[in-house]
Amino acid sequence: MSYDRAITVFSPDGHLLQVEYSMEAVRRGSTVVGIQGKDCVVLAVEKRATAKLQDDRTIRKIFSIDDSTVLAFAGLTADARVLIDRVRVEAQSYRLIMEDAPSAEYLARFVAEIQQKYTQRGGVRPFGIATLLTGLDPPNQRPVLYQTDPAGTHSRWKAQVIGGNNAKSLREFLEKQYTADLDEAAAVKLAVQALMEVVDSGAKTMEVCVVRTGGKREMLSESVVQSTVQVLEQEQQAAQQQQQPVE
Amino acid sequence: MSYDRAITVFSPDGHLLQVEYSMEAVRRGSTVVGIQGKDCVVLAVEKRATAKLQDDRTIRKIFSIDDSTVLAFAGLTADARVLIDRVRVEAQSYRLIMEDAPSAEYLARFVAEIQQKYTQRGGVRPFGIATLLTGLDPPNQRPVLYQTDPAGTHSRWKAQVIGGNNAKSLREFLEKQYTADLDEAAAVKLAVQALMEVVDSGAKTMEVCVVRTGGKREMLSESVVQSTVQVLEQEQQAAQQQQQPVE
Amino acid sequence: MSYDRAITVFSPDGHLLQVEYSMEAVRRGSTVVGIQGKDCVVLAVEKRATAKLQDDRTIRKIFSIDDSTVLAFAGLTADARVLIDRVRVEAQSYRLIMEDAPSAEYLARFVAEIQQKYTQRGGVRPFGIATLLTGLDPPNQRPVLYQTDPAGTHSRWKAQVIGGNNAKSLREFLEKQYTADLDEAAAVKLAVQALMEVVDSGAKTMEVCVVRTGGKREMLSESVVQSTVQVLEQEQQAAQQQQQPVE
Amino acid sequence: MSYDRAITVFSPDGHLLQVEYSMEAVRRGSTVVGIQGKDCVVLAVEKRATAKLQDDRTIRKIFSIDDSTVLAFAGLTADARVLIDRVRVEAQSYRLIMEDAPSAEYLARFVAEIQQKYTQRGGVRPFGIATLLTGLDPPNQRPVLYQTDPAGTHSRWKAQVIGGNNAKSLREFLEKQYTADLDEAAAVKLAVQALMEVVDSGAKTMEVCVVRTGGKREMLSESVVQSTVQVLEQEQQAAQQQQQPVE
Amino acid sequence: MSYDRAITVFSPDGHLLQVEYSMEAVRRGSTVVGIQGKDCVVLAVEKRATAKLQDDRTIRKIFSIDDSTVLAFAGLTADARVLIDRVRVEAQSYRLIMEDAPSAEYLARFVAEIQQKYTQRGGVRPFGIATLLTGLDPPNQRPVLYQTDPAGTHSRWKAQVIGGNNAKSLREFLEKQYTADLDEAAAVKLAVQALMEVVDSGAKTMEVCVVRTGGKREMLSESVVQSTVQVLEQEQQAAQQQQQPVE
Amino acid sequence: MSYDRAITVFSPDGHLLQVEYSMEAVRRGSTVVGIQGKDCVVLAVEKRATAKLQDDRTIRKIFSIDDSTVLAFAGLTADARVLIDRVRVEAQSYRLIMEDAPSAEYLARFVAEIQQKYTQRGGVRPFGIATLLTGLDPPNQRPVLYQTDPAGTHSRWKAQVIGGNNAKSLREFLEKQYTADLDEAAAVKLAVQALMEVVDSGAKTMEVCVVRTGGKREMLSESVVQSTVQVLEQEQQAAQQQQQPVE
Amino acid sequence: MSYDRAITVFSPDGHLLQVEYSMEAVRRGSTVVGIQGKDCVVLAVEKRATAKLQDDRTIRKIFSIDDSTVLAFAGLTADARVLIDRVRVEAQSYRLIMEDAPSAEYLARFVAEIQQKYTQRGGVRPFGIATLLTGLDPPNQRPVLYQTDPAGTHSRWKAQVIGGNNAKSLREFLEKQYTADLDEAAAVKLAVQALMEVVDSGAKTMEVCVVRTGGKREMLSESVVQSTVQVLEQEQQAAQQQQQPVE
Repeated sequence: MSYDRAITVFSPDGHLLQVEYSMEAVRRGSTVVGIQGKDCVVLAVEKRATAKLQDDRTIRKIFSIDDSTVLAFAGLTADARVLIDRVRVEAQSYRLIMEDAPSAEYLARFVAEIQQKYTQRGGVRPFGIATLLTGLDPPNQRPVLYQTDPAGTHSRWKAQVIGGNNAKSLREFLEKQYTADLDEAAAVKLAVQALMEVVDSGAKTMEVCVVRTGGKREMLSESVVQSTVQVLEQEQQAAQQQQQPVE
Repeated sequence: MSYDRAITVFSPDGHLLQVEYSMEAVRRGSTVVGIQGKDCVVLAVEKRATAKLQDDRTIRKIFSIDDSTVLAFAGLTADARVLIDRVRVEAQSYRLIMEDAPSAEYLARFVAEIQQKYTQRGGVRPFGIATLLTGLDPPNQRPVLYQTDPAGTHSRWKAQVIGGNNAKSLREFLEKQYTADLDEAAAVKLAVQALMEVVDSGAKTMEVCVVRTGGKREMLSESVVQSTVQVLEQEQQAAQQQQQPVE
Repeated sequence: MSYDRAITVFSPDGHLLQVEYSMEAVRRGSTVVGIQGKDCVVLAVEKRATAKLQDDRTIRKIFSIDDSTVLAFAGLTADARVLIDRVRVEAQSYRLIMEDAPSAEYLARFVAEIQQKYTQRGGVRPFGIATLLTGLDPPNQRPVLYQTDPAGTHSRWKAQVIGGNNAKSLREFLEKQYTADLDEAAAVKLAVQALMEVVDSGAKTMEVCVVRTGGKREMLSESVVQSTVQVLEQEQQAAQQQQQPVE
Repeated sequence: MSYDRAITVFSPDGHLLQVEYSMEAVRRGSTVVGIQGKDCVVLAVEKRATAKLQDDRTIRKIFSIDDSTVLAFAGLTADARVLIDRVRVEAQSYRLIMEDAPSAEYLARFVAEIQQKYTQRGGVRPFGIATLLTGLDPPNQRPVLYQTDPAGTHSRWKAQVIGGNNAKSLREFLEKQYTADLDEAAAVKLAVQALMEVVDSGAKTMEVCVVRTGGKREMLSESVVQSTVQVLEQEQQAAQQQQQPVE
Repeated sequence: MSYDRAITVFSPDGHLLQVEYSMEAVRRGSTVVGIQGKDCVVLAVEKRATAKLQDDRTIRKIFSIDDSTVLAFAGLTADARVLIDRVRVEAQSYRLIMEDAPSAEYLARFVAEIQQKYTQRGGVRPFGIATLLTGLDPPNQRPVLYQTDPAGTHSRWKAQVIGGNNAKSLREFLEKQYTADLDEAAAVKLAVQALMEVVDSGAKTMEVCVVRTGGKREMLSESVVQSTVQVLEQEQQAAQQQQQPVE
Repeated sequence: MSYDRAITVFSPDGHLLQVEYSMEAVRRGSTVVGIQGKDCVVLAVEKRATAKLQDDRTIRKIFSIDDSTVLAFAGLTADARVLIDRVRVEAQSYRLIMEDAPSAEYLARFVAEIQQKYTQRGGVRPFGIATLLTGLDPPNQRPVLYQTDPAGTHSRWKAQVIGGNNAKSLREFLEKQYTADLDEAAAVKLAVQALMEVVDSGAKTMEVCVVRTGGKREMLSESVVQSTVQVLEQEQQAAQQQQQPVE
Repeated sequence: MSYDRAITVFSPDGHLLQVEYSMEAVRRGSTVVGIQGKDCVVLAVEKRATAKLQDDRTIRKIFSIDDSTVLAFAGLTADARVLIDRVRVEAQSYRLIMEDAPSAEYLARFVAEIQQKYTQRGGVRPFGIATLLTGLDPPNQRPVLYQTDPAGTHSRWKAQVIGGNNAKSLREFLEKQYTADLDEAAAVKLAVQALMEVVDSGAKTMEVCVVRTGGKREMLSESVVQSTVQVLEQEQQAAQQQQQPVE
């Protein structure tokens, strides 16, 4: 079979195989969780397979695009870097020309349209990444959460998971656990709890970022994440003990 | 077989396979219904597979092109976004140069010609979408309904269905039910009734838009759609009871 | 076999397969009949497979190119639209530069040369259409009839059929029935009679256009066509009765 | 085998297959005969497979390039038209720049070099035609006869045949019958006689053109050709009677 | 299978095969070790397969990019030379425009982005090299260690190994032996010790370079390296004797 | 196997197959002999397969490039014509710019470099010709003999044969017969004698050209060639009689 | 297998097959030996397969690039000529712009980078040659010896062999025989001795060039080479006699 060669073409059943294959590259990437809270959006990323001697700073999967916009990705790191550079340039030139910051939706759409172009023209392959992007929504300066995928679609979410083999079950987990108007602590807790389903070793293998209404962005320190992890572990133990029969 | 590779070429029996494959992508998309009423056109779309936590606003399948023009699509979302952006720009530049709004037919033809180009040149694949476009017909400012498909044809319809596996049977349903000069309520009712053949969960999974003579466009609220759904369900129950034998 | 891939190349026996395959697309199109009369040319087209709710106006297969030039096609509608747009632009710019209308032959040659180019260069496929084009012949302003095909040839005819599976037998029918210097009524009657060999449902599924000496062009109304159909049906019945043996 | 794909490449035994296949297209074309007389060149063409209702004027295979230059071809009509247009433009621009008519050799070389280019570059296929071109030779304004073929060679001939399945045996016929310094009547007779070997129905299926010293070019009328045919038929009958044994 | 032809495309399981194959070229290259010390970074390279008569200077695998930046590579030498030339030009033009030296991170990112581009566009193959790059970190002018790979990722390391078949086990060796804040002597010793795991013939087959805080870069002489080798060999012998049982 | 497709690539054993195949086209061409005499160079060409009615002048295989430069080729005529046109233009522009005639070596190198380019770039095939070129050597204005081949090499010869199936044995014949400082008569005789090994019908099927010191070039008349042929035939008969045993 | 088609791509084990195949073309070329002496570099080339009648001057394999730079190659002659032309132009333009001669290293790097480019881009094949280049090293104007290969690497050598099937064993021979600071006579003798291992017929089939400190370059005459050959043959005979047992 060769429907996926030379150019991204349709298979007889209407699929773009190169796009679907690139989604496998996303699936083989790290897990990224995004949670929309009342006055914040939380992005939490699995720092999978960090080599012991690798410097943490260069393997970050959460990138700032603008003062108030943050992007996390799952998939091919090199592809992500290139795409991120292009969004950063776009964000700056928008600011220069419009004398205002671009909205999160504008940037998410920008990312998605680049990704779409790489699925329709010959001579290039699709980008092997999905992204979660959070930035401000102009009317009320409240942060919002967008997702883009290799096909070039972008969509807005209350909570979403990309990357990893368990993205689907994590999404179901979030659907059960998510409630509207979470305060920041609760949103962080939910994001960390979701990651703990796929991550073993606690705060060290997580990266958590909060974007707040009005645009303040903060990478949470490992200790702050660790304390959330501990609270969750204690709750888990307590829950297990309750379930154990009393003899 | 390789008639579908590298460039959209003819198969020995005169088919363009890539175009036919892209129509499969349309078939795998959501169902879109369009009804021409006396003083309006109604577009109704199935909001299939909406993830629970996804924001409704970003998965809309009905897009405004211009003050008085609306486009709904079935097929690949990313392809649609790109095409919609190009129509919007065309609509604006037409208005600037001609100092008048483009007619619905002008815009439908514009969409179709872009789609055709992607079926005849090498290095690109066809767009994986069909569209229903409604806008005004200049002489009397009455809204009209156009369809375009991946092959690049455009045509005008009194009522039409695109997308979904049951498009053909829905089209037959419309052929039986459609009558000329429907008022707005009746046109909305017919559109919703058609969607209910393929949709289970009522108004939540539908999006309905009305374009009225003179150009007023309105997205119907979920409650308005829901009341139409309820009326239809009651009629259906009544019809079933009538059919049941009295014991 | 792959003589038909990537670029239109010769097969070992000197055929251009892509061109021959595109002629299959013409064969799968509607039937178009053209008749040269004394002071007119008649084009008659089968309106095959018109969906019940489709607006007749957008599925026409007879297009005006210029005040006095009309083109009908068989094959892929989307391809035809693109080609028609190019001829229209050429006709207008010819008129602007030459301060005179282009002759039918000029426009037929223009159509054919575009079609030829798409059979010799890589990266494109041939147009999947044949056309009948009628317009004026400058010296005496009498309408004449031209045909073009996917290979890019153009030729002039007294009567010709393109499209449909029965084009060949219809051509033989015309060769038997055609006489020189038909008046308009007789030319229309012959064109309709030819179409009735492939069409069942009468005037509704036919579109007939007359171009007259001096350039008056007229789309015949359905009622006019219908009366011709009835005359023909009565003649047919009379003929059948004559053939029946008297008991 | 795929030596003939994508680009005209050499086969292991040093052949250019696409060129040889295009010569099959020539072989499948009509027969064209050219005869160099004392003060003239005669071109005679078989009008094969003329549809009954087709207008003779548009299926001519002899084209005027310039006042004194004429070209006949065998092979794909659409390819010929395109090439002829290019030679006509070249002839005109030569006349404009040089203030003199181009020689027959100049134009034959021009045709041949275009044909050669289409055998050496990728992305195009060879022209599927051979041509006989006759025009004046400047020193004495005497017409001369050139041939070009799909490979891009041009050569001068006293008498030559291109096209048709019997070109080779016709060439042998000419080698036997040709004598130098034929007057116009004898040259026409020889050309017609050659065509009669492959054509059944007389003058109707022949087109004959004479170019005379000083540049007068004339398409012979059907009646003139017919009388030549009759003379030849009478001679043939007489010859057959002579050969019959007297009982 | 042909997922790796003509253009770097995704395989069904989301891999870019050409990129993975190019990593085999890296694996077939020489071993390069980088160690971050307290006030220095040490790069040590295996000079494998040095022909006896080859001039050492031209087979160096450690290249200066700038006064304070050094790059070592594993893989295809010719590819490396081309890439190094481009980084050198970038470093110079940065200095000219910014009137400051580029940081190590800037240059590592530059190298990586070139490498990424060669994995996404048609008509080129990926670079068959990985690099270790060390230069200064602007705030405190302390040298830092970066790695890039054929996929186009760049990352910062405390200690890293690229190239050779034993890169993975050497990396584990470094993970066990590495401690923070090594002084220069200890960092050199660790780098040499790592290389000795894959190299037999001592200092002659090693190249060692030190970049110090503030930017002083020094290629260690063979004698200095040799003395480190000897110390390590003595320690090794001592360790072996200790392990031997006393009889 | 497909090492010879799409682009001229190396086969596993280091051959460029398309180049070797094009040499087959040379081998299938006519035989060309070149002899360096004391004050002349002689080119003699086999006029193979001349059709009886073809005009000799247009099938020449010896072309003048410049007043003092002559080129003969073996292989595809159409390719040769194109290459010859380019050399002629180069010769003229050299003369214009340098105000001197180009040397034979300059032109031979020019031909060879064009031929080489067509063996290294994609989208074109090699030229299917070899050439012998003779022109003046500036210092003493003595003519010299160069050869070029489809691979793009050029080399100088005292005597050389290209084209035909017997080129190799003819080359051995020349190696035995050639002596230095041949006067013109002897050089012509040797060239004709070589051709007679492959040609049957005497002077008619030969074309002989002499370039003399100082640049006088002359095509020998058929009668001159014929007398050389006769002398050779008489010598041959005499030799055969000597060899016959006396009874 | 098709890893070697259309573009130079990696095979699964990280090889560039087109590059390795082109090295076969080098292996099939003549043997070239380079020796670094104290105040000179000697290049000696096997003149293999010289046709008896070929002019020696045009089959040279040692080319002057500049007053003081000389290049010898093994592999495809036509490729070499093209590359040599480009280096010569570069050497001249360097001299014009820098008002100084380019160093041998600069030119070797220039050659290598061109060769590398032809291994990474689509649409071209690698150059089928390796080169030995000798020129001056600016500081002390002493000649140095560089090698480049089809992969695009360049490296400096004390003594090196390229081309021929026995390059590897000749290299081992040189490794045994080479000593530092050879005077010119000894360097020439060593180079000739190496060639004699693969060449039978003495000085006639060798070409020897010496570049001396300060830039004097000299092609040794055949008689000088012959005397070296004789000395070596006498030494060889003497050595053989010594080895023969005395009876």
